[in-house]
Amino acid sequence: MERRTFLKSAALAGAATTLAAPAVAQSTTEMVIVSTWPRDFPGLGLPAQRLAARIAELTDGRLDVQYYAAGERVGAFDAFDEVASGNAQAYIGADYYWKGKHPGWVPFTAIPFGMTSTEIDAWTKFGGGQELWDELADQFGLQNFAAGNTGVQMGGWFNKEINSPDDLKGLKMRIPGLGGDVMAKLGASPVSLPGGQIYENLVSGAIDATEWVGPYNDYFMKFYEAAKYYYWPGMHEPGSMLAMGLNKSWFNSLPKTEQEIIKAACTEENNLTLSETNANNGAYLNRLINDHGVELREFNDDVYDAFGSASAEVIEEARDYDDLSKRIYDSVLEKRDEIGAWTALSDMAYVQKRNRVIGR
Amino acid sequence: MERRTFLKSAALAGAATTLAAPAVAQSTTEMVIVSTWPRDFPGLGLPAQRLAARIAELTDGRLDVQYYAAGERVGAFDAFDEVASGNAQAYIGADYYWKGKHPGWVPFTAIPFGMTSTEIDAWTKFGGGQELWDELADQFGLQNFAAGNTGVQMGGWFNKEINSPDDLKGLKMRIPGLGGDVMAKLGASPVSLPGGQIYENLVSGAIDATEWVGPYNDYFMKFYEAAKYYYWPGMHEPGSMLAMGLNKSWFNSLPKTEQEIIKAACTEENNLTLSETNANNGAYLNRLINDHGVELREFNDDVYDAFGSASAEVIEEARDYDDLSKRIYDSVLEKRDEIGAWTALSDMAYVQKRNRVIGR
Repeated sequence: MERRTFLKSAALAGAATTLAAPAVAQSTTEMVIVSTWPRDFPGLGLPAQRLAARIAELTDGRLDVQYYAAGERVGAFDAFDEVASGNAQAYIGADYYWKGKHPGWVPFTAIPFGMTSTEIDAWTKFGGGQELWDELADQFGLQNFAAGNTGVQMGGWFNKEINSPDDLKGLKMRIPGLGGDVMAKLGASPVSLPGGQIYENLVSGAIDATEWVGPYNDYFMKFYEAAKYYYWPGMHEPGSMLAMGLNKSWFNSLPKTEQEIIKAACTEENNLTLSETNANNGAYLNRLINDHGVELREFNDDVYDAFGSASAEVIEEARDYDDLSKRIYDSVLEKRDEIGAWTALSDMAYVQKRNRVIGR
Repeated sequence: MERRTFLKSAALAGAATTLAAPAVAQSTTEMVIVSTWPRDFPGLGLPAQRLAARIAELTDGRLDVQYYAAGERVGAFDAFDEVASGNAQAYIGADYYWKGKHPGWVPFTAIPFGMTSTEIDAWTKFGGGQELWDELADQFGLQNFAAGNTGVQMGGWFNKEINSPDDLKGLKMRIPGLGGDVMAKLGASPVSLPGGQIYENLVSGAIDATEWVGPYNDYFMKFYEAAKYYYWPGMHEPGSMLAMGLNKSWFNSLPKTEQEIIKAACTEENNLTLSETNANNGAYLNRLINDHGVELREFNDDVYDAFGSASAEVIEEARDYDDLSKRIYDSVLEKRDEIGAWTALSDMAYVQKRNRVIGR
């Protein structure tokens, strides 16, 4: 995923949409939602719009929801401050965007070598994650909930094969966040580029490689015209959790029913975003391979070992920030190991055996 | 999972609980929910009770929800008829229990060599599954939604090692559903036993093996005292989807808001049940190994190949039932292959590489 993309799309901003009007006379409460995603952006913007509409629908308009995509009211990266200050009531986005405010935000989206979607759900809902998230968010006057997941992201598009960690040296790659920090430790030059500028930079040779999300999202970016090798699996965002962040004092002022409807709608969308992405990734992966001659390549063990060492350093640096950061990173690493041991015996092993038997 | 367990627990039935009363005078609609799960049953009964309470809470009591565990109003396997007839408004259970009514119900829980939790969510919500489920349910006057998932179940508990398909011959194993049919094709004698009788039968030697669910559920059954070898991964229920089935004409008579709140609560619980199970399986797997000396064993390729051949026959027989059954099984198999190819590149490959690098 990428941040600055959304700033560009902001220039195309339209008016906010009022999503529901109460059918009968009743007291309504305004709920302004700002988003880090551009309007109608597949896999991210559309799910955010669906969540906003859902809150209006489930409250029968008692919450008068107005949704603003990135730039329609504030820029994508001003969403946090807009909500913390009380100018808006909620944002939808990815909490690792706020790592400059506190590195503890990052694990509530994804860390390199972190959790898959089902693992981060287990940690957040029943493994102590939400409590730590609450503690962090409270410092900023926020109340946050999981509200979507991208699933495992692909490793990216390359115009040459990556057969050893040495092949990463000097590589100009568009990759944001802690994943970019990992690449930098391995001698690559990570750059941030808005989504709309990646394709032209890849074609011109200004960058050698890029990651984006997965087959469904990447298909529409046409990276396959400029970079032939599509690597799997990404180590940098193995199950990016999306979030709704609410102004905490506003949220606490709501009737209990409205609070619970917001929570339910977030968890519903948490399930739907992932399901939609997984459903489309399968089909679009087939199209990329069969219609566009994309060459899938698997990162080998040498490359993954190098990613692993660099990731451990990057995570250690983030963990050392303060006591809360230590507790957050310790929790996510401990639960990754514990829940991950179960994943290895269940989903991982089963899919491996099933696909071998059915010849996939 | 097991059916007849619940009948036994039915004998312990208590009174139904009224889950919410409206805080202010308003019109309320009675919603009686019957369940196939015993009261307070971890991983199944407790989530069903949470879902019932959630619907009352999110509607602020406009739906006056009364929840009856298995046997408290009707026996577990009478839940379907109770709702189809309109005596109750909804059931919570697993739709493969109704395979005697139509084999098309089975894929809406799980089929051998079928989908994992994330795959079946993708199929159901965005891959055509819900539409086929609607078509099937409509024949019985029902409207069904996904409302939980167990994740990949373990292969079961054995008192000897299973090193080849021949080791299954003559084995008396407690395993229900299509999984039992698979075992029968391989020369085993599948039996159905209520959960409360499995332990005594395993200790006495009346059965040689049993499956149940996963580490969290199985821990409390103490099978480790009678069978040493705990096999992974199960082929029989790789992501059992739980369901709420509603009386369709009643559901359609509700205000739109109430309909949508029920759907949202079901999808929320779909996410929560799986998360709770995954969070606990990791921890309870550690306890089984470290505190109780359980010997984990992996089914080898020979055994899995035999499971695969037998499963294909069992599924073909179910598919041949009628035109709708053909379309349901064709859809689930097609989407299993398509979405499963993506799972192999994403969750499966990532967890394999991650766990190798971090030494898990």
